[in-house]
Amino acid sequence: MSKQLPLVEQSLCCSPLMRQPLSEDQSAELARVFKALGDPVRLRLLSLIASHAGGEACVCDLTDAFDLTGPTISHHLKVLREAGIIDGERRGTWVYYRVLPTTLQMLSTVLMAPGSVTT
Amino acid sequence: MSKQLPLVEQSLCCSPLMRQPLSEDQSAELARVFKALGDPVRLRLLSLIASHAGGEACVCDLTDAFDLTGPTISHHLKVLREAGIIDGERRGTWVYYRVLPTTLQMLSTVLMAPGSVTT
Repeated sequence: MSKQLPLVEQSLCCSPLMRQPLSEDQSAELARVFKALGDPVRLRLLSLIASHAGGEACVCDLTDAFDLTGPTISHHLKVLREAGIIDGERRGTWVYYRVLPTTLQMLSTVLMAPGSVTT
Repeated sequence: MSKQLPLVEQSLCCSPLMRQPLSEDQSAELARVFKALGDPVRLRLLSLIASHAGGEACVCDLTDAFDLTGPTISHHLKVLREAGIIDGERRGTWVYYRVLPTTLQMLSTVLMAPGSVTT
Protein backbone atom coordinates (compact mmCIF):
# COMPACT_ATOMS: atom_id res chain seq x y z
CA MET A 1 0.00 0.00 0.00
CA SER A 2 1.11 3.55 -0.61
CA LYS A 3 1.86 5.96 2.17
CA GLN A 4 -1.12 8.13 2.92
CA LEU A 5 -1.11 11.90 3.30
CA PRO A 6 -3.68 12.46 6.03
CA LEU A 7 -2.36 15.83 7.14
CA VAL A 8 -2.29 17.38 3.69
CA GLU A 9 -5.56 15.84 2.61
CA GLN A 10 -7.41 16.94 5.71
CA SER A 11 -6.05 20.43 5.96
CA LEU A 12 -5.56 21.46 2.35
CA CYS A 13 -8.20 19.54 0.46
CA CYS A 14 -10.03 22.64 -0.65
CA SER A 15 -7.79 25.41 0.54
CA PRO A 16 -5.42 26.84 -2.08
CA LEU A 17 -1.84 27.64 -1.24
CA MET A 18 -2.57 31.30 -1.89
CA ARG A 19 -5.44 31.75 0.55
CA GLN A 20 -3.53 31.63 3.84
CA PRO A 21 0.04 30.95 5.04
CA LEU A 22 0.92 27.27 5.32
CA SER A 23 2.00 25.85 8.65
CA GLU A 24 5.38 24.12 8.93
CA ASP A 25 3.69 20.71 9.04
CA GLN A 26 1.53 21.42 6.01
CA SER A 27 4.46 22.71 3.97
CA ALA A 28 6.63 19.71 4.89
CA GLU A 29 3.95 17.24 3.74
CA LEU A 30 3.22 19.12 0.53
CA ALA A 31 6.90 19.64 -0.30
CA ARG A 32 7.44 15.89 -0.13
CA VAL A 33 4.86 15.31 -2.87
CA PHE A 34 6.07 18.18 -5.08
CA LYS A 35 9.64 16.95 -4.69
CA ALA A 36 8.57 13.54 -5.98
CA LEU A 37 7.15 15.30 -9.07
CA GLY A 38 10.31 17.41 -9.48
CA ASP A 39 12.09 14.92 -11.71
CA PRO A 40 11.65 14.52 -15.49
CA VAL A 41 11.82 10.72 -15.43
CA ARG A 42 9.18 10.49 -12.71
CA LEU A 43 6.87 12.88 -14.56
CA ARG A 44 7.20 10.84 -17.75
CA LEU A 45 6.59 7.62 -15.83
CA LEU A 46 3.49 9.15 -14.30
CA SER A 47 2.09 10.27 -17.64
CA LEU A 48 2.92 6.91 -19.23
CA ILE A 49 1.12 5.02 -16.46
CA ALA A 50 -1.91 7.32 -16.52
CA SER A 51 -2.31 7.23 -20.28
CA HIS A 52 -1.63 3.49 -20.63
CA ALA A 53 -4.49 1.24 -21.69
CA GLY A 54 -6.66 0.49 -18.67
CA GLY A 55 -4.95 3.23 -16.63
CA GLU A 56 -2.28 0.88 -15.32
CA ALA A 57 1.15 -0.30 -16.38
CA CYS A 58 3.89 -2.64 -15.21
CA VAL A 59 7.63 -2.01 -15.40
CA CYS A 60 7.61 -4.20 -18.51
CA ASP A 61 5.42 -1.59 -20.24
CA LEU A 62 7.61 1.34 -19.20
CA THR A 63 11.25 0.42 -19.77
CA ASP A 64 11.21 0.86 -23.57
CA ALA A 65 10.52 4.59 -23.21
CA PHE A 66 13.74 5.20 -21.25
CA ASP A 67 17.43 4.68 -21.70
CA LEU A 68 17.60 3.56 -18.08
CA THR A 69 18.05 0.26 -16.26
CA GLY A 70 15.12 -1.58 -14.69
CA PRO A 71 16.38 -0.92 -11.14
CA THR A 72 16.59 2.83 -11.85
CA ILE A 73 13.02 2.88 -13.13
CA SER A 74 11.92 0.83 -10.12
CA HIS A 75 13.58 3.38 -7.82
CA HIS A 76 11.63 6.25 -9.42
CA LEU A 77 8.39 4.25 -9.18
CA LYS A 78 9.11 3.70 -5.49
CA VAL A 79 9.52 7.46 -4.92
CA LEU A 80 6.18 8.14 -6.63
CA ARG A 81 4.55 5.39 -4.60
CA GLU A 82 5.93 6.59 -1.28
CA ALA A 83 4.65 10.09 -2.07
CA GLY A 84 1.13 8.69 -2.52
CA ILE A 85 1.02 9.61 -6.22
CA ILE A 86 0.77 6.07 -7.58
CA ASP A 87 -0.09 2.71 -6.10
CA GLY A 88 1.08 -0.76 -7.11
CA GLU A 89 -0.46 -4.21 -7.01
CA ARG A 90 1.42 -7.42 -7.61
CA ARG A 91 -0.29 -9.83 -10.02
CA GLY A 92 1.81 -12.81 -10.98
CA THR A 93 5.31 -11.82 -12.08
CA TRP A 94 4.70 -8.07 -12.26
CA VAL A 95 3.64 -5.17 -10.10
CA TYR A 96 0.99 -3.10 -11.87
CA TYR A 97 1.00 0.63 -11.14
CA ARG A 98 -1.85 3.11 -11.40
CA VAL A 99 -2.16 6.78 -10.58
CA LEU A 100 -3.95 7.81 -7.38
CA PRO A 101 -6.14 10.62 -8.74
CA THR A 102 -7.07 11.88 -5.27
CA THR A 103 -3.50 13.01 -4.58
CA LEU A 104 -3.13 14.76 -7.94
CA GLN A 105 -6.50 16.43 -7.53
CA MET A 106 -5.51 17.63 -4.05
CA LEU A 107 -2.32 19.18 -5.48
CA SER A 108 -4.28 20.70 -8.33
CA THR A 109 -6.69 22.33 -5.87
CA VAL A 110 -3.86 23.61 -3.67
CA LEU A 111 -2.31 25.37 -6.68
CA MET A 112 -5.50 26.98 -7.92
CA ALA A 113 -5.63 30.73 -8.13
CA PRO A 114 -8.02 32.04 -5.45
CA GLY A 115 -10.67 33.18 -7.93
CA SER A 116 -10.93 29.80 -9.63
CA VAL A 117 -11.96 27.76 -6.58
CA THR A 118 -15.46 26.47 -6.92
CA THR A 119 -16.00 24.85 -3.52
CA MET B 1 12.06 39.71 -14.87
CA SER B 2 11.33 36.09 -14.16
CA LYS B 3 12.28 33.31 -16.51
CA GLN B 4 9.39 32.38 -18.77
CA LEU B 5 8.14 28.89 -19.48
CA PRO B 6 7.10 29.07 -23.12
CA LEU B 7 7.41 25.38 -23.81
CA VAL B 8 5.32 24.24 -20.89
CA GLU B 9 2.76 26.99 -21.25
CA GLN B 10 2.24 26.36 -24.93
CA SER B 11 2.17 22.63 -24.87
CA LEU B 12 0.51 21.84 -21.56
CA CYS B 13 -1.76 24.77 -20.90
CA CYS B 14 -4.92 22.70 -21.03
CA SER B 15 -3.57 19.21 -21.34
CA PRO B 16 -3.38 17.26 -18.08
CA LEU B 17 -0.42 15.08 -17.29
CA MET B 18 -2.68 12.06 -17.39
CA ARG B 19 -4.10 12.48 -20.89
CA GLN B 20 -1.01 11.56 -22.93
CA PRO B 21 2.68 10.73 -22.31
CA LEU B 22 4.91 13.76 -21.79
CA SER B 23 7.84 14.33 -24.12
CA GLU B 24 11.34 14.61 -22.67
CA ASP B 25 11.32 18.40 -23.19
CA GLN B 26 7.93 18.85 -21.56
CA SER B 27 8.87 16.74 -18.56
CA ALA B 28 12.18 18.60 -18.08
CA GLU B 29 10.44 22.00 -18.06
CA LEU B 30 7.67 20.85 -15.78
CA ALA B 31 10.04 19.05 -13.38
CA ARG B 32 11.99 22.27 -12.92
CA VAL B 33 8.88 24.04 -11.60
CA PHE B 34 7.76 21.16 -9.37
CA LYS B 35 11.29 20.90 -7.98
CA ALA B 36 11.14 24.57 -6.99
CA LEU B 37 7.93 23.78 -5.07
CA GLY B 38 9.49 20.69 -3.47
CA ASP B 39 10.86 22.50 -0.45
CA PRO B 40 8.93 23.41 2.73
CA VAL B 41 10.54 26.84 3.12
CA ARG B 42 9.72 27.80 -0.46
CA LEU B 43 6.12 26.64 -0.10
CA ARG B 44 5.72 28.69 3.07
CA LEU B 45 7.31 31.72 1.40
CA LEU B 46 4.93 31.34 -1.52
CA SER B 47 1.86 31.15 0.70
CA LEU B 48 3.08 34.09 2.79
CA ILE B 49 3.59 36.24 -0.30
CA ALA B 50 0.26 35.26 -1.85
CA SER B 51 -1.74 35.87 1.31
CA HIS B 52 0.07 39.09 2.28
CA ALA B 53 -1.86 42.35 2.13
CA GLY B 54 -1.96 43.56 -1.46
CA GLY B 55 -0.69 40.20 -2.76
CA GLU B 56 2.94 41.22 -2.48
CA ALA B 57 5.67 41.13 0.15
CA CYS B 58 9.30 42.13 0.56
CA VAL B 59 11.99 40.13 2.38
CA CYS B 60 11.39 42.48 5.33
CA ASP B 61 7.85 41.05 5.61
CA LEU B 62 8.98 37.43 5.42
CA THR B 63 12.01 36.95 7.66
CA ASP B 64 10.09 36.91 10.97
CA ALA B 65 8.27 33.72 9.99
CA PHE B 66 11.54 31.75 9.66
CA ASP B 67 14.51 30.87 11.79
CA LEU B 68 16.71 31.49 8.75
CA THR B 69 19.14 34.20 7.66
CA GLY B 70 18.21 36.86 5.12
CA PRO B 71 20.58 35.44 2.48
CA THR B 72 19.02 31.97 2.85
CA ILE B 73 15.53 33.39 2.36
CA SER B 74 16.78 35.40 -0.61
CA HIS B 75 18.20 32.22 -2.13
CA HIS B 76 14.82 30.46 -1.87
CA LEU B 77 13.06 33.49 -3.37
CA LYS B 78 15.53 33.38 -6.26
CA VAL B 79 14.70 29.71 -6.93
CA LEU B 80 10.96 30.52 -6.99
CA ARG B 81 11.61 33.46 -9.28
CA GLU B 82 13.79 31.51 -11.72
CA ALA B 83 11.07 28.86 -11.93
CA GLY B 84 8.55 31.51 -13.00
CA ILE B 85 6.44 31.06 -9.84
CA ILE B 86 6.96 34.56 -8.42
CA ASP B 87 8.21 37.84 -9.81
CA GLY B 88 10.00 40.67 -8.06
CA GLU B 89 10.11 44.42 -8.54
CA ARG B 90 12.58 46.75 -6.83
CA ARG B 91 11.01 49.83 -5.26
CA GLY B 92 13.41 51.89 -3.16
CA THR B 93 15.35 49.76 -0.69
CA TRP B 94 13.35 46.55 -1.17
CA VAL B 95 12.39 44.07 -3.84
CA TYR B 96 8.65 43.32 -3.66
CA TYR B 97 7.58 39.83 -4.65
CA ARG B 98 4.24 38.63 -5.95
CA VAL B 99 2.96 35.29 -7.17
CA LEU B 100 2.57 34.72 -10.91
CA PRO B 101 -0.86 33.09 -10.96
CA THR B 102 -0.52 31.94 -14.58
CA THR B 103 2.24 29.50 -13.67
CA LEU B 104 0.34 28.07 -10.68
CA GLN B 105 -2.83 27.76 -12.75
CA MET B 106 -0.88 25.96 -15.50
CA LEU B 107 0.46 23.46 -12.92
CA SER B 108 -3.00 23.07 -11.43
CA THR B 109 -4.44 22.23 -14.86
CA VAL B 110 -1.65 19.79 -15.64
CA LEU B 111 -2.43 17.86 -12.45
CA MET B 112 -6.17 17.68 -12.94
CA ALA B 113 -7.79 14.31 -13.19
CA PRO B 114 -9.00 13.75 -16.79
CA GLY B 115 -12.68 13.91 -15.89
CA SER B 116 -12.39 17.28 -14.18
CA VAL B 117 -11.10 19.24 -17.18
CA THR B 118 -13.62 21.75 -18.41
CA THR B 119 -11.89 23.07 -21.52
